[in-house]
Amino acid sequence: MYKTLIALAILSTTAAAHADEGMWMPQQLPQVANQLKAAGLALDPASLTKLTEFPMGAIVSLGGCSASFVSPQGLVATNHHCVYGSVAHNSTPERDLLANGFLAKTLSEELPAAPGSRIFVTKAVTDVSKQVITAAVAKLDGKARLDAIEKNTKSIQAECEKDAGHRCTVSSFYGGLEFYLIKQLEIRDVRLVHAPPEGVGKFGGDTDNWMWPRHTGDYGFYRAYVSRDGKAADFSEDNVPYVPQHYLKLAKEGVKEGDFVMVLGYPGRTNRHRLPSEVAYTFDWSYPAFVKSSGESLAIIAETTKDNKDTALKYASQVASINNYYKNRQGMLDSYAGSDMLARKTAEHEALKQWINADAARKKEFGADIAAVEKLIAERDAETKRDYFLSSSKPRLLNTARMLYRLANENTKPDTERKSGYQVRDVPRIKSSVAALVRNYDEKVDKALILNSLVKYAAEPAKQRNAAFDKVLGIKDGMSKADLQAALDKLYAGSKLGDAAVRTAWIDKKPADFKASDDSFIQAAVALYGPDLKDEEKEEALGGKLQEAYANYMKAKIAYMNSKGQAVYPDANSTLRVTFGQIAGRQPGSDGSDWKAFTTVAGVAAKATGTGEFNAPKAQLAAIKAKDFGKYVDPTLKSVPVAYLATLDITGGNSGSAALNSKGEWIGLAFDGTLDSIISDWDFNKAMTRSIQVDLRYILWNMKHVDHADNLLKEMNAE
Amino acid sequence: MYKTLIALAILSTTAAAHADEGMWMPQQLPQVANQLKAAGLALDPASLTKLTEFPMGAIVSLGGCSASFVSPQGLVATNHHCVYGSVAHNSTPERDLLANGFLAKTLSEELPAAPGSRIFVTKAVTDVSKQVITAAVAKLDGKARLDAIEKNTKSIQAECEKDAGHRCTVSSFYGGLEFYLIKQLEIRDVRLVHAPPEGVGKFGGDTDNWMWPRHTGDYGFYRAYVSRDGKAADFSEDNVPYVPQHYLKLAKEGVKEGDFVMVLGYPGRTNRHRLPSEVAYTFDWSYPAFVKSSGESLAIIAETTKDNKDTALKYASQVASINNYYKNRQGMLDSYAGSDMLARKTAEHEALKQWINADAARKKEFGADIAAVEKLIAERDAETKRDYFLSSSKPRLLNTARMLYRLANENTKPDTERKSGYQVRDVPRIKSSVAALVRNYDEKVDKALILNSLVKYAAEPAKQRNAAFDKVLGIKDGMSKADLQAALDKLYAGSKLGDAAVRTAWIDKKPADFKASDDSFIQAAVALYGPDLKDEEKEEALGGKLQEAYANYMKAKIAYMNSKGQAVYPDANSTLRVTFGQIAGRQPGSDGSDWKAFTTVAGVAAKATGTGEFNAPKAQLAAIKAKDFGKYVDPTLKSVPVAYLATLDITGGNSGSAALNSKGEWIGLAFDGTLDSIISDWDFNKAMTRSIQVDLRYILWNMKHVDHADNLLKEMNAE
Repeated sequence: MYKTLIALAILSTTAAAHADEGMWMPQQLPQVANQLKAAGLALDPASLTKLTEFPMGAIVSLGGCSASFVSPQGLVATNHHCVYGSVAHNSTPERDLLANGFLAKTLSEELPAAPGSRIFVTKAVTDVSKQVITAAVAKLDGKARLDAIEKNTKSIQAECEKDAGHRCTVSSFYGGLEFYLIKQLEIRDVRLVHAPPEGVGKFGGDTDNWMWPRHTGDYGFYRAYVSRDGKAADFSEDNVPYVPQHYLKLAKEGVKEGDFVMVLGYPGRTNRHRLPSEVAYTFDWSYPAFVKSSGESLAIIAETTKDNKDTALKYASQVASINNYYKNRQGMLDSYAGSDMLARKTAEHEALKQWINADAARKKEFGADIAAVEKLIAERDAETKRDYFLSSSKPRLLNTARMLYRLANENTKPDTERKSGYQVRDVPRIKSSVAALVRNYDEKVDKALILNSLVKYAAEPAKQRNAAFDKVLGIKDGMSKADLQAALDKLYAGSKLGDAAVRTAWIDKKPADFKASDDSFIQAAVALYGPDLKDEEKEEALGGKLQEAYANYMKAKIAYMNSKGQAVYPDANSTLRVTFGQIAGRQPGSDGSDWKAFTTVAGVAAKATGTGEFNAPKAQLAAIKAKDFGKYVDPTLKSVPVAYLATLDITGGNSGSAALNSKGEWIGLAFDGTLDSIISDWDFNKAMTRSIQVDLRYILWNMKHVDHADNLLKEMNAE
Repeated sequence: MYKTLIALAILSTTAAAHADEGMWMPQQLPQVANQLKAAGLALDPASLTKLTEFPMGAIVSLGGCSASFVSPQGLVATNHHCVYGSVAHNSTPERDLLANGFLAKTLSEELPAAPGSRIFVTKAVTDVSKQVITAAVAKLDGKARLDAIEKNTKSIQAECEKDAGHRCTVSSFYGGLEFYLIKQLEIRDVRLVHAPPEGVGKFGGDTDNWMWPRHTGDYGFYRAYVSRDGKAADFSEDNVPYVPQHYLKLAKEGVKEGDFVMVLGYPGRTNRHRLPSEVAYTFDWSYPAFVKSSGESLAIIAETTKDNKDTALKYASQVASINNYYKNRQGMLDSYAGSDMLARKTAEHEALKQWINADAARKKEFGADIAAVEKLIAERDAETKRDYFLSSSKPRLLNTARMLYRLANENTKPDTERKSGYQVRDVPRIKSSVAALVRNYDEKVDKALILNSLVKYAAEPAKQRNAAFDKVLGIKDGMSKADLQAALDKLYAGSKLGDAAVRTAWIDKKPADFKASDDSFIQAAVALYGPDLKDEEKEEALGGKLQEAYANYMKAKIAYMNSKGQAVYPDANSTLRVTFGQIAGRQPGSDGSDWKAFTTVAGVAAKATGTGEFNAPKAQLAAIKAKDFGKYVDPTLKSVPVAYLATLDITGGNSGSAALNSKGEWIGLAFDGTLDSIISDWDFNKAMTRSIQVDLRYILWNMKHVDHADNLLKEMNAE
């Protein structure tokens, strides 16, 4: 399934060639009003541009996943895999909520979500391009330029965040050409309300992940809580359910093939107009390297957790995430292997350069940056390759220590001068992540993962290695695996950071405390600090140059595409977007089959094995066998629909996004794409791309006829 | 996949309603000549009736699987799962032929197949109905009738087998109305020539078994060896490859959707016109009981072999078989649950009875037997239910001892008076099975399986239990699991039959030797002998009555159907049959998809995971990636076809059957049906039934481009 993806700073653009292609910013929708009407939208497209009105006001972000309010009491619907971490967090070997599911029958039974869980309600989006890249900034270069952009960004964000309980983010659009300030209410008291058993919510597991026909009931519910005066607040028994300005109304009628559908959510990242060299780097080196190391990590986690259910539960979420990316990357590599993508991107880039060179003014404006961007990207890629094993050879507690020490150092500066990510506003997130370690860290597993990487790192020539890191671990040429194991044993044994109380106490300490500590990971963090800062400076110098050149390259590209009459929407960057299309099967489907638009519960019964990934609950199978379908039966399918395909343009981050019909009524949740669709992140293929949605009728049927979640159905006015 | 099925004595008939329904006896084909021509057969249908001419002369039986000669040097093509036992037999932890595959590059590298392996070449089929049910037999009843039928059968078989090296079998057709003598050359020196790795031959494993889209390369090769003078002979270094009268020629052109296809082989058993009570017994009791006990057996074998690769290999073939039946029976139960089959069968049976009762002569001829057959079947079913756990509570070595002691007793009689199965002709088979134990038996596993059943048996009331068996094991009311374990421990410990030499030595001993033995299993066999014979007598008395009544019931049914203008072909009974139809996809396919007629190697790559059931060999994946397809690429699919669906009427026993095109050229091997097709064994569904064939082009491509079996390709004239 699609997963949480953090947007990178550099984004790109793409052309709107098809009705189904396009992750539109809400304010752009009037530009495609005719297409929306033609596709069947019954609402006024202009009504979709208003973020605080219906339906856009009901759409929220979980910071990595999308979600929606579905009741006036702050009930939030999203995917099972988006609440998975919170289910795992509340699971123990004795009370396995992953296996058995969870349903709070009353507000008081609701459980705190995993530490750091947030619900972000977008309140305003403002163009701040000219405040970020001021006339003064435009003249700067390298690190100075990046520093100035960061300074302006932080200042805009800080001003905005004076409105307590809000999170403000300046996001880059069109590859750094434009910047928008996103103001969001940040709800910090998030509670788990309901998740079906894994045998429903994760039915099909990794085998069916990215596949069709699909029978996963990928849904779950949170509730947003605020203080009694309606402000965002930390968890408190006194908090009350948040009353959203708007929430989605459930469609009274089911959907069918050919119906209009739109998905509203927060897609993470697409890369459709990357340079050919970036495509080559990614598909020839980066993704293959990831696939290889992920396979190794999965084997190591499986081996080291096989005899300990508690540890296995701790790593369940990470294993799910690795598996998901593994299949995603391998799927993209498979699509890439059979495609002419690189050749086409290269030809397009050559055409752009010809267009630039054909005109003296254009050549003057863009020529130098087009050349520079290639050179700078090559430089950056070489550094990433060099540091590949270094980055995965750092123990998790060492990285925690590094973060804590950096925080202590940044804390000595005024807030606005602190590094992004270490400002006052970031401290709660850091605290949460430090606390969360209890639930998802095991020394034995971590050490095995690190050793696997460290052996490869240590085998590299000394000049490619990082001298400071080598010194900390005592790494020298020619060390054996046993030597490295011994070095790690010593490092781990010398630290008390594994103790949650000890670890948390470091959050408020001063740099001097760190320097005086004899904790091995703290000592290592102190030793790495200076060299790391120097590396960061070099990176930022490169980053500043790259920002300037890349933005100008994108400006050229947009001008070129506009010259061909093609409108442009920005690539995904974890901001609110709308995609629209139709419910549609696919010909061809996978090898040997065509795909129908809908699956039904008959397929759940056919796939069920009573164990493992296809462990549908007995009560569900009994209801299917008895045709206990109630009002959720589809008149054509003569069964309850489980999932449907649609011609939508979604990606990671869209998980949990509400699917709405032509009237803006709720009809399901997007949760996945098919394996040969995900290459669309780089290269949209209109004929092959299909998103997968769980049908609202399946959600409601399972809640009503299997899990008896009558309290929630009533709350959603589903009865 | 379809598996070896032993035909039962009582068979039934069905109507020929559709071109695709029908497992025709070769001599019946002229009756459907028009349908064959209309379907596209280019050969003269009459040419298919001649068993010793082309192409029928190339079709052989492996005794449970079907196969064909594909070269003038006795090379035999069949399914991977039909040679699986021989691959496992030759596998060791050090030389894992299952995992790695096997290819003999020369005749001298070929390996002896598993003990008891046979290739049967049908030489003649003769109607002997009047010699089996003579006028004298027709007057007999009960056990006397069954004994007389057995005597006549043995006598006909013995006369036929005077031609040394042949196996002659009298088979019952049309539920005992007709009997045919099948004379087959019995080739006893069978050698394993080639099997691809499990990652090809069993690709998809149990997950894909009975499924579409399918990507299993289910093929393997044996070679038939005979003495230098061309006679069937035991294994000898001096033997030479058998020169068949005919062998299949490879199609020069590939097939496509809509093409005529026929499959020639030995289907095991169908039950399409069983009585409603037999349907109810099977689906309401027998199959559910089987599914339950199979699940338990699989869990026990998995648990007891998990730490011992050698033992796991010994049970690999049995596990595959149980898994296969498990899925088969569960699939049928699922289809049955959603069908009106029993109601329809009941209505048909009522219509038959009305037709009989509507006419005085018919009522006189059939009325009594129609009533009797129901009563007798109910009696038989009750006995089977009563003895269900008894039959699975007998240790394997106890059953071996029982077989050996029975043999010793039968050996004291003249050959013609010996019980069927214990005549001189049967001794080699008995010897093979006694010897084969070395390769597929482990005391720990056996004991665990027996204990599981014995606990249930011992929990039954004493009057339902078998007194003789109770005495042998010392079973009394209220024994605990530990008591039963102790009883088994004692029994197993007191026997040396686990030693292959000791076991084999018993084959030639006298009854007195058995009586004098202190071996616990031998003693038990002696103790059970008398009571078992008495039970057998009772069963045979019932069997004789049932034969008479059932044959007359079938006679009535045939007359009834003929009265409605419907021609009738006999149900499958492991004799040579022909089914014909078209290559065709299916709408609907499985839930959420339609099925195309062909899969391709692209699907192999898409499913491959590098491990477990989807462990396609690296070399194969590399060839697919490189599009190293050679001449085996399909012009429309632009890839190598792997498998195709067809509207054929096949069942267990058809595994390994050659698929031929309209010109009688070889185009693949039947190996499976789809899960919702297998209910056709009881109730043919023209719209849904599809057989699955591996495409000859995939076999040849994999042999050429992956396994480099150039010697075999040359021998088959494939180059």
